[in-house]
Amino acid sequence: MNEYDILKETCLHSEPIFDGVVLHVYKDDIRLPNGHESTREVIRHLGAVAIVPLTDDGKVIMERQFRYPVDAVISEIPAGKLDSLGEDRLDAAKRELREETGITADEWINLGDYHPSAAYTDERLTIYLARGLHRGQQELDEDEFLHLEEIPLNRLVDLVMDGTITDGKTQIGLLKAARYLGK
Amino acid sequence: MNEYDILKETCLHSEPIFDGVVLHVYKDDIRLPNGHESTREVIRHLGAVAIVPLTDDGKVIMERQFRYPVDAVISEIPAGKLDSLGEDRLDAAKRELREETGITADEWINLGDYHPSAAYTDERLTIYLARGLHRGQQELDEDEFLHLEEIPLNRLVDLVMDGTITDGKTQIGLLKAARYLGK
Repeated sequence: MNEYDILKETCLHSEPIFDGVVLHVYKDDIRLPNGHESTREVIRHLGAVAIVPLTDDGKVIMERQFRYPVDAVISEIPAGKLDSLGEDRLDAAKRELREETGITADEWINLGDYHPSAAYTDERLTIYLARGLHRGQQELDEDEFLHLEEIPLNRLVDLVMDGTITDGKTQIGLLKAARYLGK
Repeated sequence: MNEYDILKETCLHSEPIFDGVVLHVYKDDIRLPNGHESTREVIRHLGAVAIVPLTDDGKVIMERQFRYPVDAVISEIPAGKLDSLGEDRLDAAKRELREETGITADEWINLGDYHPSAAYTDERLTIYLARGLHRGQQELDEDEFLHLEEIPLNRLVDLVMDGTITDGKTQIGLLKAARYLGK
């Protein structure tokens, strides 16, 4: 038994609340470590990938897109959901980068996983650093809208630190990439 | 008109799906920039705060707690939800730090905001660096379980980079704190 098993909560009953396109919401009855019962609101999510595409001259290919929940156009690294549970994450990252930016890459470096909101979703996101970039044609579907721009990584890290860039995966991807590259 | 307004989506109808304790789920009909209609699944969230409590000898007060959605005990910086929309975020951070760790702090530095998942929630989280710490009594409620530990910031940054620490707010808080402190 792990020393932290005494913190564990166990599921008594899981009630499906909403089966959406992106979000699958459940309300679970659980047993707490002290024997009490409680509930947990949980979003099941397929998982996602994000990419820091770095040019030979130290710029990152960024996207600007409107994010409805926050009612703003924000600046993000390329990213996307897995197509299915268990899809190979590197394959998904290559697909999302190619579709959203037209770019393929010679070198893919795994910068690790994170949980965006472990309090209420099982979503796990994997971030890659892509180098050795080759340009091609974007493959956006007709209902997808985004603008591409190239910005020096050092400048982007300043925009993360001063709060201009607010997207979570983008903050983590840029800060990890900068540290990985010794910048 | 802003040059990015052409990316904007507008709400046609918002349907409440689930009004939970933590999560408030909506399914909205929207109009895309090309005139087409689509839907967005949105979680409304009060917002949250997280704190990097740094001791005089360079250690961070960390919490281990079980996170039901990811079915694991994970390592996190102290954090909590706002009590109400519009609650002062610094007040909330001081309350959460005191309740979860018993600690008060002389110095509070705002390390900026981020959106954990701008694709599907309006949640905004503010991170603070707290220094000049004073120890006191934890004020956990009887159904709250967490273990405290102190770990050097430099070691924690290594654990973020190698993927051992997977919590998003913790990755951002530790990476920003390290960069802010020039480490």
